[in-house]
Amino acid sequence: MTELRRYRPEDAQEFCCSILEKLNVPREDANEVGDCLLQADLRGLDSHGMIRLPVYAERIRKGVVNPRPVPKVVRSSAAMALLDGDNGLGAVVGSKAMEKAIEQARVAGISFVGVRGTNHFGIAAFYVQKAVRQGMIGCAASNAPPHMAPFGGRARFLGTNPFSVGIPAGKKPPLIFDASTSVVARGKIIIAAEQGKLIPPGWAIDSDGNPTTDAIAALAGSVLPFGGPKGSAISLIIDVLCGVLTGAAFGLTLNTLENHEAEQNLGHVFVAMRTDIFSSTEDFGSRMDQILQMLKSSPPAPNTDEVLAPGDIERQNEAKNRQLGVPLWPTVVEQLIALGAKLDVRFPHPQPM
Amino acid sequence: MTELRRYRPEDAQEFCCSILEKLNVPREDANEVGDCLLQADLRGLDSHGMIRLPVYAERIRKGVVNPRPVPKVVRSSAAMALLDGDNGLGAVVGSKAMEKAIEQARVAGISFVGVRGTNHFGIAAFYVQKAVRQGMIGCAASNAPPHMAPFGGRARFLGTNPFSVGIPAGKKPPLIFDASTSVVARGKIIIAAEQGKLIPPGWAIDSDGNPTTDAIAALAGSVLPFGGPKGSAISLIIDVLCGVLTGAAFGLTLNTLENHEAEQNLGHVFVAMRTDIFSSTEDFGSRMDQILQMLKSSPPAPNTDEVLAPGDIERQNEAKNRQLGVPLWPTVVEQLIALGAKLDVRFPHPQPM
Repeated sequence: MTELRRYRPEDAQEFCCSILEKLNVPREDANEVGDCLLQADLRGLDSHGMIRLPVYAERIRKGVVNPRPVPKVVRSSAAMALLDGDNGLGAVVGSKAMEKAIEQARVAGISFVGVRGTNHFGIAAFYVQKAVRQGMIGCAASNAPPHMAPFGGRARFLGTNPFSVGIPAGKKPPLIFDASTSVVARGKIIIAAEQGKLIPPGWAIDSDGNPTTDAIAALAGSVLPFGGPKGSAISLIIDVLCGVLTGAAFGLTLNTLENHEAEQNLGHVFVAMRTDIFSSTEDFGSRMDQILQMLKSSPPAPNTDEVLAPGDIERQNEAKNRQLGVPLWPTVVEQLIALGAKLDVRFPHPQPM
Repeated sequence: MTELRRYRPEDAQEFCCSILEKLNVPREDANEVGDCLLQADLRGLDSHGMIRLPVYAERIRKGVVNPRPVPKVVRSSAAMALLDGDNGLGAVVGSKAMEKAIEQARVAGISFVGVRGTNHFGIAAFYVQKAVRQGMIGCAASNAPPHMAPFGGRARFLGTNPFSVGIPAGKKPPLIFDASTSVVARGKIIIAAEQGKLIPPGWAIDSDGNPTTDAIAALAGSVLPFGGPKGSAISLIIDVLCGVLTGAAFGLTLNTLENHEAEQNLGHVFVAMRTDIFSSTEDFGSRMDQILQMLKSSPPAPNTDEVLAPGDIERQNEAKNRQLGVPLWPTVVEQLIALGAKLDVRFPHPQPM
């Protein structure tokens, strides 16, 4: 792989919006999806950034994603709601669901919103940050198609079911935790396979269920859950909440993103919670600052500069990339140029450095 | 270590109750604590069973735990409440808090209850099973004193902060997940040290922060979070919810259970949620049965009989131990006999086999 190229965030955003508008996505919705993809690239999570735009576009073109969804609140009470996403893009549906959770939590203190009939929603941190910007604690999770063997199994059953928690502090930056329930993103194994490299033990098993460090055998097999039986159980619980509880697809009934012939019917859940439910916002903020300060003052491990809080690296990435430009690999740029050519949208020039 | 001894559950329960009553704990509360300890031993989680009775007793005797607490609801709205535990035993306070959550969830669909001013609450699964018995989804978590280095650190900062999720199914047994946020219970390292055995790599670091397989060096150092940075973040988030949010102690301000000179002021959180909030109870139950059936039908890994659902092993243990008797190690029996001798309570005879 040659060097990263960098683009002005406005240019990259405009490209995403124009592509989606050509596919009949309303401007406002296109903007939300662009924000979500861009935030992933800016935060250094390139596996969930603009690299996903071609598959989103393809799914709309094939008619398995609805470009103009009208998400409906199917059930609702003071502290909970269920949305049917009308098969819209995940970022469009997910943002509406998180807004609903925030709105309800303002009054009820907490809100739990489930979503069915939705699609790939990008990075879960995108949604919890909406709550954090309103001074609230936010959680987001999604189920995903089977790519992971359960603990004790050898075949794909669980999704890499991501989850995120965001917690505002006082003067310090917020705690933003965002993770998949797999040991490692499958994308890293794909890259190792392309480069002919071995993968570390513990990442994956081959199709017979034996541990492997061969990236190609791993791709034919399964990625493993993080933390053994614990991560496996957490992943299953996310599928229960997002899929079983909401009425979305779950387990082996979930179609992959790459199967362009069928809808996915993914499910998400979102939680918003005020930080002043048990004391004052000021008191909570100052106590958050204290625990984060204690953590950062904790003696680092050998060969480590400092103990980081969840979200520190991504925040540093974002600050850097907003200055230098959105980083994209040349292979991704090629795919985006090709996508633009099909839809008559010109991909922007790199940012002058 | 010689062989396990086994006792009739009623006899073990009666012993716990008598000990606690001698220490001025009301009968009803003593029963709740006995249930909690016994359930741990029956489910095979001996580190949280009757082995804890001596330290509970000692803390009451030293005046750092209140034997007759009057837990108070400090704040309350439709879907949330904050309890002050009045420094009571964790099982007493925690049970009242979970009951409050269940009561609120009956009306609001969901309830989030925080607790401060409480103590060690035993196994978290004890509380979620109360929700599951009412046909609800339950969650429970607690913070705990610093015994674990955070990811990237070399000194103790995080508690092993346990959490549990219980989800009822239809005809199948419920999913009961219960785990600490450490790779392994510290008790297992203590046992390895006593037996002069090595511990597997990845369990712990020595006091300089270097990986170690020496159990004695590990005890002087820190146990590690499960799943690296992910488990470390989950443990921190549990401390934020249980400690920072509720007004309990958190991080380095948490005293150990073994420090008999000071109160702990632990915090817990409990969630109860109805399963019919988004569809019917029957529909949810049948969908749960489906996902559990898919999981159990998933091809097992080499040298594995079947893929287990969270809670399967503990349920099998409980069924066996209810028949054969509560299993206790001779060293634990000795401590309990000594405790009984101090308080004039006779420890029961083993169950005739």
